[in-house]
Amino acid sequence: DIVPITRALISVSDKTGIVDLCTFLHTTKNVELLSTGGTAKALRDAGLPCIDVSEYTGSPECLDGRVKTLHPKVHGGLLAVRGNAKHEQDMLENKIGKIDMTILNLYPFAATVASGAEFGQCIENIDIGGPSMLRSTAKNHAFTTIVTGPDQYDEIKACIEDHGGTTLALRKKFAARAFALSASYDSAIATWFAKQLEEGGESSSSSSNGSSPVVTRVYKPEFPLKYGCNPHQKPAGISSLLGADLPFTVLNGTPGYINLLDAANAWLLVKELREATGLAAASSFKHVSPAGAAVAVPLTDVECAAYEITPDAAANLTPTALAYLRARNADPMCSFGDYAAVSDVVDEDTALILKKEVSDGIVAPGYTPQALDILKSKKGGKFIVLEAKANFVPDAVEYREVYGMTFSQRRNDVVITKEHMTKNVVTKGGVSALTEDAIRDMIVASICVKYTQSNSVGFAKDGMMVGVGAGQQSRVDCVKLAGRKVSTWYLRQHPKVLGLQFKAGVKRQDRVNARVRYIEGDFTDEERVRWEAQFETVPEPLTDVEKNEFMKKATGVTISSDAFFPFRDSIDHASKVGVSFVAQPGGSVQDAQVTECCDAYGMVMSLTDVRLFHH
Amino acid sequence: DIVPITRALISVSDKTGIVDLCTFLHTTKNVELLSTGGTAKALRDAGLPCIDVSEYTGSPECLDGRVKTLHPKVHGGLLAVRGNAKHEQDMLENKIGKIDMTILNLYPFAATVASGAEFGQCIENIDIGGPSMLRSTAKNHAFTTIVTGPDQYDEIKACIEDHGGTTLALRKKFAARAFALSASYDSAIATWFAKQLEEGGESSSSSSNGSSPVVTRVYKPEFPLKYGCNPHQKPAGISSLLGADLPFTVLNGTPGYINLLDAANAWLLVKELREATGLAAASSFKHVSPAGAAVAVPLTDVECAAYEITPDAAANLTPTALAYLRARNADPMCSFGDYAAVSDVVDEDTALILKKEVSDGIVAPGYTPQALDILKSKKGGKFIVLEAKANFVPDAVEYREVYGMTFSQRRNDVVITKEHMTKNVVTKGGVSALTEDAIRDMIVASICVKYTQSNSVGFAKDGMMVGVGAGQQSRVDCVKLAGRKVSTWYLRQHPKVLGLQFKAGVKRQDRVNARVRYIEGDFTDEERVRWEAQFETVPEPLTDVEKNEFMKKATGVTISSDAFFPFRDSIDHASKVGVSFVAQPGGSVQDAQVTECCDAYGMVMSLTDVRLFHH
Repeated sequence: DIVPITRALISVSDKTGIVDLCTFLHTTKNVELLSTGGTAKALRDAGLPCIDVSEYTGSPECLDGRVKTLHPKVHGGLLAVRGNAKHEQDMLENKIGKIDMTILNLYPFAATVASGAEFGQCIENIDIGGPSMLRSTAKNHAFTTIVTGPDQYDEIKACIEDHGGTTLALRKKFAARAFALSASYDSAIATWFAKQLEEGGESSSSSSNGSSPVVTRVYKPEFPLKYGCNPHQKPAGISSLLGADLPFTVLNGTPGYINLLDAANAWLLVKELREATGLAAASSFKHVSPAGAAVAVPLTDVECAAYEITPDAAANLTPTALAYLRARNADPMCSFGDYAAVSDVVDEDTALILKKEVSDGIVAPGYTPQALDILKSKKGGKFIVLEAKANFVPDAVEYREVYGMTFSQRRNDVVITKEHMTKNVVTKGGVSALTEDAIRDMIVASICVKYTQSNSVGFAKDGMMVGVGAGQQSRVDCVKLAGRKVSTWYLRQHPKVLGLQFKAGVKRQDRVNARVRYIEGDFTDEERVRWEAQFETVPEPLTDVEKNEFMKKATGVTISSDAFFPFRDSIDHASKVGVSFVAQPGGSVQDAQVTECCDAYGMVMSLTDVRLFHH
Repeated sequence: DIVPITRALISVSDKTGIVDLCTFLHTTKNVELLSTGGTAKALRDAGLPCIDVSEYTGSPECLDGRVKTLHPKVHGGLLAVRGNAKHEQDMLENKIGKIDMTILNLYPFAATVASGAEFGQCIENIDIGGPSMLRSTAKNHAFTTIVTGPDQYDEIKACIEDHGGTTLALRKKFAARAFALSASYDSAIATWFAKQLEEGGESSSSSSNGSSPVVTRVYKPEFPLKYGCNPHQKPAGISSLLGADLPFTVLNGTPGYINLLDAANAWLLVKELREATGLAAASSFKHVSPAGAAVAVPLTDVECAAYEITPDAAANLTPTALAYLRARNADPMCSFGDYAAVSDVVDEDTALILKKEVSDGIVAPGYTPQALDILKSKKGGKFIVLEAKANFVPDAVEYREVYGMTFSQRRNDVVITKEHMTKNVVTKGGVSALTEDAIRDMIVASICVKYTQSNSVGFAKDGMMVGVGAGQQSRVDCVKLAGRKVSTWYLRQHPKVLGLQFKAGVKRQDRVNARVRYIEGDFTDEERVRWEAQFETVPEPLTDVEKNEFMKKATGVTISSDAFFPFRDSIDHASKVGVSFVAQPGGSVQDAQVTECCDAYGMVMSLTDVRLFHH
């Protein structure tokens, strides 16, 4: 399967290494060189003889060089089946000589577009002759060799030196690369063309008649994933959009499919919280919804006790560390094995908090060297550390394939601001009933539900989510679900919970879980035995009366909903966990009844007019 | 910007409509037709004169037709800049005539590969001349028209009829499509080549040096959506993969983004349930997770009472109607405004059940005429009716863009079978402790969680989901959430609930909701007043003691989990709602403790070895 090279056609815009390669081919291997324009000049300047393609074909170069190589003598020479009697005869009769190798680059179309060139110049940079030769040579790779990049030159030389020609394996490999290059080249053209049509407003109306332009998304594989959502879903991988960047750099570990979904959502949540509140922000994700999220607001002493940190230590935390401590403690049972995100550079304080928690990874805009060292040593070195690229701007429209349907939609790029919370306060007293803290919490809760799988509601207090209700099939179920989390969060601050005396050696996460079960109280007999074994003396139960008494003191909580409350029932439920402020889009036929209900409970409600479904 | 057509080059493998178009061009518009081989024959057979390309170029067809159109007279005729003095001069001197239009298809490479053809035959089906002409014509679209599919013929005819030639807007749009086609064509070749190398073990090492192929997904816009997940997310739309079909036909209504996500998941769920159990199946979706799902198993009399149907009527239901009645009644509060799917042709029985429920739409493999009439009149004619295409096969790998990352993964195409449930029963008694009904319910619950947003668990009984816990951040939260639904479902069959005496005129959905609130019992004072007003006489409360007493009789329930139980706590919780059977993948370091826990509660547990995360 060795093919000796006797004649080569060379046409390169990138001249790197070409003289060296052609010197090897001509001087030591006696290969005849065909070439055009700038390439021919470069070779001749180096003292290498070469034949102009127009001389070779006998067809004069015309039309400003638009049709140099599109000639039977070139393509016949590339495409003829060697050893096929009929083909050999045809070649003789038509004076077609064999061309064994093509060395080329394509006109730099993508670079021309990137340089901001105007339409006509971009069109001019669509290479016609190059792709044709590339494709003819690659198709006929049983006999011909297609070389498309300077990084292949050494391999070519070595192969010819070793074998006296190119091997089939090499020709096949180079042919595969050539078709990939061609695909990528035309994809860039197709994508650019579609954008031109969009901007010219020429694409929208014609979509129904079937002749609307297709949409080409060209992905550059960046790294493979071990598997997708599940181990049997192979292959799986992460790609970038051709010509664009990935939003994150992997600094440590090997992220999985769900890790990266978490990272994208967790990062956007904290980035937007930071921008909206001016405070350091953190989130703690599990299965593409937040278990918790918070901005840096100081802790009360009772919170310190509930989160197992001394007031002194808490007062000295950096804002980033404080934000993550809050985010992690909204629902520490759920945050077990979380994916974390923080809005600011990760410092040692933050890294040390993460160090003692079970967590899968983190995404942040940067890391101090000490923080990075601490995180890299976590999980036996497997803790995932992603750095979010500053100023990364994704495409405005995202595509998603589900069972043969490709869904496209504009990203949810609405920016949640104070304005949303203040422009339409429909309850008694109007906007003046809103405090600055309430507005902050409404923003925190709304940005949180923006990145929570729908249906969802979220409860916030003191800049911190204290109950997130994700993924439910009815509005009131979201409220019940998240409301229970709020109760549990509050009751973790009950004196009887704070006073639980664990045996020495009971682990941190076991203490967390044991407190939740103490609050819930609904043990099976089997379970109670093991639960009680964690304490020096068996704790007295926390009774319903005690719980209700404690919850009566709950106040100042904010609820935000990703869509309107269709009935007043959600408000009825919310009233039981200290809700004073409500943010929701509004738009239900029952808005008036819901407002009346808020007034009855003394709540302040803002209609934001922004729905935040997320899937 | 109108270009009249005087000469056209035609080369099509798909002859659909070509004679009609060429008759129009030649007979009524006097266009000169150039053609090759089979196309020329077809045109001549229809009485149309056409000139062979070889005659036109003066270059004999040789090399078995490998080099027919790769000639300066063809490409010069396509590429020359009209009106450019130098170009016009060159054309005169070189006897190059203008070609104004190219009509072509490419050799069917993808179909050849799909047919299982061997390497050489696939290579032979790589079109060389076609893409070259396509690209030349598209590049020079300022003057030339590239037509690449029969669905464009009518538009071409209309345009020439109206304007006397093609408009720039049309030429540009067709050029964009041509490059998209070329990109897609070479992407298919590149992808196939990469696979060949992989199979030959020749590729793996080269992915790091930039020579790995790109991936091109080419989408054909099918219909626009009013908006995406939210009203401010515009534009939005649904596309098909170029060359493939959509899975559904819209028979009525205008589906939205989330409707279609629901439809895809709801349909796959019932399709797989049908295949796995042999029974008619139905599901009821809200926000991309099931509120309920079931197969056609007869109702008990108590269930009939709870679902407000007489035993006689229930006994006469068709299997499809029975399945939907069950699916809708798992959690009728959540199913309010659902998206329904059924596995079989929708009959009148099923349509009549849907008619009286608040529902957004349905997907099914077909509809009887009566059923379709009933459904089309629902919601003032806006009820969405989708017909699932039989034998639709989606691509094996799906792509999804999230914040600049493109996630690709093999679809979750695992087929859940009896084998999964029986091969590894780890509890006492082994597989012989499993009944056929239990195996059916394990399959039902597992297929249900396969299409439920993760984390999730689902509880099944009598072929019906009786509690689905979707979208949670911890395993045990899924169990608590779904477990509460199981309790509510059971307690809807409590004599005191069945005996509730509503005032005349209380609506169906209000009765549903009122029963749930009666069971939950945690009214606020505000709420209790309104609740009590629905009854003739105020009902006695359903006490915790009564509820616990009733739930003690619960038994035979199956739980399936989308991932392993990390701790025994989930089983402890499950034991409270009558669970007898457990299906989960296994693989936790605590599997032994979880098994021990199941044994303590007398449950039978199968390890399926299949994780079912879904996002």
